[in-house]
Amino acid sequence: MNKNSSNIMALAPNTSNKRETVCIFGTGDFGRALGHKMIQSGYPVVYGSRSTQISSLVPRDAEVLSHAEAAQKAAIIIIAIQRQHYNFLIPLAEILRGKVLVDISNNLKLNQYPESNAEYLAQLLPGSRVVKAFNTVSAWALQSGTLDASRQVFVCGDDVEAKQMVMNIVRALGLTPLDKGSLLAAQEIENYPLQLFPMWKLPIFLSLGLTAFFFLYCLALDVIYTYIYEKNNFSFFIAITIPNRVCPVMALILLALVYLPGIFAAIIQLYRGTKYRRFPDWLDKWMLCRKQLGLIALAFASLHVVFTLVTPMRAFVNWRISKGIISQALNNKTEPLNITNAWISDTYLSLGILGFFLFVLLGITSLPSVSNNVNWREFRFVQSKLGYLALILSTAHTLVYGGKWFLSPSAYKWYLPNIYMLSLVVPCAVLVVKFVLIFPCVDKPLTQIRQGWERNPKHSE
Amino acid sequence: MNKNSSNIMALAPNTSNKRETVCIFGTGDFGRALGHKMIQSGYPVVYGSRSTQISSLVPRDAEVLSHAEAAQKAAIIIIAIQRQHYNFLIPLAEILRGKVLVDISNNLKLNQYPESNAEYLAQLLPGSRVVKAFNTVSAWALQSGTLDASRQVFVCGDDVEAKQMVMNIVRALGLTPLDKGSLLAAQEIENYPLQLFPMWKLPIFLSLGLTAFFFLYCLALDVIYTYIYEKNNFSFFIAITIPNRVCPVMALILLALVYLPGIFAAIIQLYRGTKYRRFPDWLDKWMLCRKQLGLIALAFASLHVVFTLVTPMRAFVNWRISKGIISQALNNKTEPLNITNAWISDTYLSLGILGFFLFVLLGITSLPSVSNNVNWREFRFVQSKLGYLALILSTAHTLVYGGKWFLSPSAYKWYLPNIYMLSLVVPCAVLVVKFVLIFPCVDKPLTQIRQGWERNPKHSE
Amino acid sequence: MNKNSSNIMALAPNTSNKRETVCIFGTGDFGRALGHKMIQSGYPVVYGSRSTQISSLVPRDAEVLSHAEAAQKAAIIIIAIQRQHYNFLIPLAEILRGKVLVDISNNLKLNQYPESNAEYLAQLLPGSRVVKAFNTVSAWALQSGTLDASRQVFVCGDDVEAKQMVMNIVRALGLTPLDKGSLLAAQEIENYPLQLFPMWKLPIFLSLGLTAFFFLYCLALDVIYTYIYEKNNFSFFIAITIPNRVCPVMALILLALVYLPGIFAAIIQLYRGTKYRRFPDWLDKWMLCRKQLGLIALAFASLHVVFTLVTPMRAFVNWRISKGIISQALNNKTEPLNITNAWISDTYLSLGILGFFLFVLLGITSLPSVSNNVNWREFRFVQSKLGYLALILSTAHTLVYGGKWFLSPSAYKWYLPNIYMLSLVVPCAVLVVKFVLIFPCVDKPLTQIRQGWERNPKHSE
Repeated sequence: MNKNSSNIMALAPNTSNKRETVCIFGTGDFGRALGHKMIQSGYPVVYGSRSTQISSLVPRDAEVLSHAEAAQKAAIIIIAIQRQHYNFLIPLAEILRGKVLVDISNNLKLNQYPESNAEYLAQLLPGSRVVKAFNTVSAWALQSGTLDASRQVFVCGDDVEAKQMVMNIVRALGLTPLDKGSLLAAQEIENYPLQLFPMWKLPIFLSLGLTAFFFLYCLALDVIYTYIYEKNNFSFFIAITIPNRVCPVMALILLALVYLPGIFAAIIQLYRGTKYRRFPDWLDKWMLCRKQLGLIALAFASLHVVFTLVTPMRAFVNWRISKGIISQALNNKTEPLNITNAWISDTYLSLGILGFFLFVLLGITSLPSVSNNVNWREFRFVQSKLGYLALILSTAHTLVYGGKWFLSPSAYKWYLPNIYMLSLVVPCAVLVVKFVLIFPCVDKPLTQIRQGWERNPKHSE
Repeated sequence: MNKNSSNIMALAPNTSNKRETVCIFGTGDFGRALGHKMIQSGYPVVYGSRSTQISSLVPRDAEVLSHAEAAQKAAIIIIAIQRQHYNFLIPLAEILRGKVLVDISNNLKLNQYPESNAEYLAQLLPGSRVVKAFNTVSAWALQSGTLDASRQVFVCGDDVEAKQMVMNIVRALGLTPLDKGSLLAAQEIENYPLQLFPMWKLPIFLSLGLTAFFFLYCLALDVIYTYIYEKNNFSFFIAITIPNRVCPVMALILLALVYLPGIFAAIIQLYRGTKYRRFPDWLDKWMLCRKQLGLIALAFASLHVVFTLVTPMRAFVNWRISKGIISQALNNKTEPLNITNAWISDTYLSLGILGFFLFVLLGITSLPSVSNNVNWREFRFVQSKLGYLALILSTAHTLVYGGKWFLSPSAYKWYLPNIYMLSLVVPCAVLVVKFVLIFPCVDKPLTQIRQGWERNPKHSE
Repeated sequence: MNKNSSNIMALAPNTSNKRETVCIFGTGDFGRALGHKMIQSGYPVVYGSRSTQISSLVPRDAEVLSHAEAAQKAAIIIIAIQRQHYNFLIPLAEILRGKVLVDISNNLKLNQYPESNAEYLAQLLPGSRVVKAFNTVSAWALQSGTLDASRQVFVCGDDVEAKQMVMNIVRALGLTPLDKGSLLAAQEIENYPLQLFPMWKLPIFLSLGLTAFFFLYCLALDVIYTYIYEKNNFSFFIAITIPNRVCPVMALILLALVYLPGIFAAIIQLYRGTKYRRFPDWLDKWMLCRKQLGLIALAFASLHVVFTLVTPMRAFVNWRISKGIISQALNNKTEPLNITNAWISDTYLSLGILGFFLFVLLGITSLPSVSNNVNWREFRFVQSKLGYLALILSTAHTLVYGGKWFLSPSAYKWYLPNIYMLSLVVPCAVLVVKFVLIFPCVDKPLTQIRQGWERNPKHSE
């Protein structure tokens, strides 16, 4: 240790750990939070402000000067002011020449302005080196130090060296910089923090609507009908029985809806005889939210599995089973094993388990870190081949389970079909059309079209 | 809004959003798909083609010129032609001097040529700046816009500035560029899209073979034997009972096979007295697919868990239980609680649950995003310590469950051992040898060898 | 193929695949392992060593020279010696001028020296271009080729070109370089391999302590008490019954502990009237390990789910159920369905399933690859909104399940409260205080404070 200390003494005095001064324009919330954090990380901070009266709000260790004076003290200036006030920087253009300006601004709504704030700043001050950064971090998170999941700071800029300087600061604050390229990326970076699961909206609303419909449908047929006509109070079905009917139905329908747009796309391409024309907008949108539809379907399937597995623990089920056993015992007879029943029960359980297993596999491969590690061919194999296999198994599971009801008249309460029959419409349609599409006479022209062949070559689009 | 608009008017006329012209050599499928996408993203596109007759196929907004004319219009030229035609570019060498050439070609099989296509192009045209990109994207995906999981575009090249220009285009098309370094990486990038789970082949074929063997083994002993000698038709065992015997056996054996090569490696190193000699090829290969073996074992274990949990819902099981209860009721007696049975049943369930829990934990830490966030020490701790604990718990689970059959002569149908006994051979062997290896008298020299010590120092390898 | 070969012959002789010589200073374990690997990857390797006697240890294909001679043969020199011997490089400063020096050293403990080894090296040899790399790779892993999960090599350095050269070598060895920025990052990179789950220590010790306490508590009340006062030997409860009581209690308490520090933080901020003062250290630490607490809670919840689902397979449970059924059969009566019981049983199962479902969702979003793909707003929505919903559902699940025991005197064995009551204290407290905090009269000032408003503005901190 001693020897080591002497080594340090022998060094040139400029230790590379010394941080360079950073200037912050603006003493608003984010400017102050960032300043606090930088001072904690060892950076000297100087604020540029119109008046030094409000200095009482800034961190104690920071200096507060006029904008011009502050800018001259640092090579990096963080612009913590709103876009509509960027104009006042124009008179400072000479002082800011060559400096690194860090645009940290956010807008209130998506694509609020024609160009991004950072590009606007770069246009106002062509002599400065503008870098976009920090806008995805919240002031509250910076202040409280709870940056668990949002440690990523997107950085972009046209000047590589300037970007490097900013990325070093980001790292020094304990955050992770992510280089997004040139200043062109600023628009995307500014839109990023404004989103709230944009791809999920449509699938979630669709699922909520369908779920509500099927829930009420089951409520009517299983609870209200039974109460009116059979005088049985099965209101507690609301807790498990009905959810466990709605969940598998939703899972099956949504899984089929994942593969339906691909069917439509194939038909449209066959009809048009070319792939070089855009699909209708609704189909494009639908295709883009297939992953989300599939994940929601997986959520419903998982709920169905757990709801099913708790069955033997339900008071109602135990009561029903004991009643059956006691009545057999009182009648002094033992029913023999019904092989057909054993086959049906084991088959639909087994089909369901295998289908769910493949479904979970699909879910795991759609995790970003997994799907980034597979190439296009592998992704197609999993999502298309295994996906269809999961759909086939799930449909078969439903058919074997609910098959007996198709012919039984008691299943048509109020002349309405059982929910199982409704759930089978879309998946069966998808599977039948897909089966037609893989016939060579249909598959061959489709493959040609997808490889660029056109039936009526002409200037496309 | 108005104020903002006036700001825009005051700007210098060159808005940074204006895209530069891109030239594409070749009007094949991928060239056209890429051109379409670029035009949609705001890039002026000019095609270089031998003849302008085939211009009817290219996007309407694109210009079609001769190669030389087209090349002069753009700084970036995308070479959408096949490697065997690269020769024709040599006469254009002067025009292409200093231009960025983007090699997007793919081969038909792995390592088809001695050097990568991009390096070959760079050798043909030493004055140009070659960048490899886009080869991992499929034309169909580009066209249909369904780029869910394959948005990554690997980019490599020796010229940093050229690479940056290409990466900006990639980003503008809504894809994610990933810098893979210098042009040396082109070989790897060209091989990437040709793979179909290369590391998975051996483990999957091994698993399929073993599964088929054990399935037939169980079928013979549990269904055919029972049918012949006991006249019972248990054919429905095919659906759940037999899969639920094969799955745990496969999971246990595969998990043991994950740790077996490590045991072999230790023995080889102890025997050789050095770590500076390569392992035999088969051992190397085996060690490299341990992760895949482990994940397949986890899949079997998960299936086993779900197959087991549905047990109380099976018609056969319900029938067997009722039969037992009814016979007790008819005989007017209640069996007392068998404490030993309660202990055995609870113990093997508990051991199985804990083993499976650790196994799932191992699976989660092998997700790329998780394992990238742990260091070598942490990874070793989880995969080695927790992995062996999972193996011990699973083996104990099997021993407690199947132990009673070892001594029962009825378990040896047709003089064949029960499948449980077969499943225990490999894991028990691994655990016994591992136990020997952690004795200090064996562990000490092994640790020394792994730290670089050699028993007979000599020029190695 | 033939045509292609002729093309190759026509090329300039310098194929870009030829690797440049790499020099390694030091013939210790890591130096040798790295040399082996480099020779395998096609790099000519030359060792620099004090004496050439020990050359018998280095790979056969490598040259061994004096330091000065070896350094002159290569542009990249890997410094595989320990920090305390760096001094001897000073006389070589002239020879090393402009060379790329790769610092691969590690320390024995965190922050052992005031500055990182790489920065120290850069200070000793200001004319050289120092790059930090390879320290996170283990020699054993390099040697055995089993680099499954630790293929990441962190690289940092001030010279971009030098860094690029090192990153190319990293890629050629089959590893993945990760640019961590300037040499300032060396400290962090050197600390990285020394950690063993630093953020997990506190949560794991807390969980182990609490688990042991609750296990003994249950053991006393459920096994020992029953044995002493009711003469029943329920020792087998240790395997499943007691774990399945401890796990849900732990899950609920730990989940509540995830949200408790946020409650404290809000109260402290309301009291202080500002957010610009640091929280007490214990609260800071607590907030930083909330993710880990939550994941451990999820692990306990998952165990609880599986332990519960195997219930119908337990010998004890089957015995108890048959006993009940047989006694009904012998008494010749069938109990009618108890609607209240059916409601309670279905409700707590359903609440538990939904709570667990949300909990798993939270777990999935905390996977690094998922949380990196959501922005701050989305992360807050999931972790805060859905997290509180999971806590509410879990608490309700426990209340409905255990509610009947609150008023039953038999639940207070030895005058001690049942474990369910203990488990409800923290979650109920959190939910009540959170409910108060969302009242507008409390929420409004809190929101203002979090947006930067201060009750008594003054120089903070």
